[in-house]
Amino acid sequence: MIFKNKRLSIKKTNLIPEDDLVKNYGLNSFEFTQKDKKEIFVCSKNKDLDLIELDQLLQTVGWSRRPIRRVKRALDFSILVVGLWRHDNKFPRLVGFARCTGDGILEATVWDVAVNPVYQGLGLGKELMQYILKELKNIGISRVTLFADAQVVSFYKRQGWVLEPKGSKCAFWYAN
Amino acid sequence: MIFKNKRLSIKKTNLIPEDDLVKNYGLNSFEFTQKDKKEIFVCSKNKDLDLIELDQLLQTVGWSRRPIRRVKRALDFSILVVGLWRHDNKFPRLVGFARCTGDGILEATVWDVAVNPVYQGLGLGKELMQYILKELKNIGISRVTLFADAQVVSFYKRQGWVLEPKGSKCAFWYAN
Repeated sequence: MIFKNKRLSIKKTNLIPEDDLVKNYGLNSFEFTQKDKKEIFVCSKNKDLDLIELDQLLQTVGWSRRPIRRVKRALDFSILVVGLWRHDNKFPRLVGFARCTGDGILEATVWDVAVNPVYQGLGLGKELMQYILKELKNIGISRVTLFADAQVVSFYKRQGWVLEPKGSKCAFWYAN
Repeated sequence: MIFKNKRLSIKKTNLIPEDDLVKNYGLNSFEFTQKDKKEIFVCSKNKDLDLIELDQLLQTVGWSRRPIRRVKRALDFSILVVGLWRHDNKFPRLVGFARCTGDGILEATVWDVAVNPVYQGLGLGKELMQYILKELKNIGISRVTLFADAQVVSFYKRQGWVLEPKGSKCAFWYAN
């Protein structure tokens, strides 16, 4: 995933009637737009994901396909699953995604942050991350972790993440 | 935590009668000893932890005290919690600990790996990690991740962990 954030302004909006917002995206969704743009985007942790649409999104960022049944179980056991939609009253389109695992008390780890390349560079990834951090803060999590791919390290750094605090490193073990 | 593994030989043993082993440590425990040593150690994911004893162990490695109620909830929501005991028929002593969070399907992350400094350098940390990786492999996890503190990076490297694959970095976000 390549972020090309040009520091465009994002504005919280109230363009979608409250009833429609809740009906389409569930409670606690967050609606926003870019300045001077007509498209509305919505982050939500409470809207069901279409797993085929999610798979297509993940493919647009070049991630290998994972069996949908396994993905479904992984989402079921995640502590937070967030979608980002380009709003449309009839056919909202999934353009971003991220999820967290953890114990929900001491540790939370963000995985699978993805924004469709067509919509990259508009500040959507930043909004998605802010939505996630706010939700985690609400449940009392005071430290969040993630493994940043080389090409997005600066994206996270700009947003206040601390890279390799005290010289710690990320380590991966792969089954044979 | 400082590992001083001198590559001492560890041997799987069967010195504890099967009934006693299951009664004291639960099913699927792993008993081992050092060559030429009389102490027996047991890894188990099925023995209940005394949270006071766990807190004391974590303090021996210099970790800040966390409220026991929160620790208990964090353990409840972990996908794997492993203790390492110096065997004694009446009073087994907790000398090591580690746990994992994750979705149990695609991601598992190891946290809080600790070995009492008195027992460091005997290869116990290595056995503990092997026990964990075996358990995770059994449930179908093919990739395990962790954040390695600076002083234990070489410990994990020696055991086949890949540090910062493809230039990825660990990132931490702290609530204000």
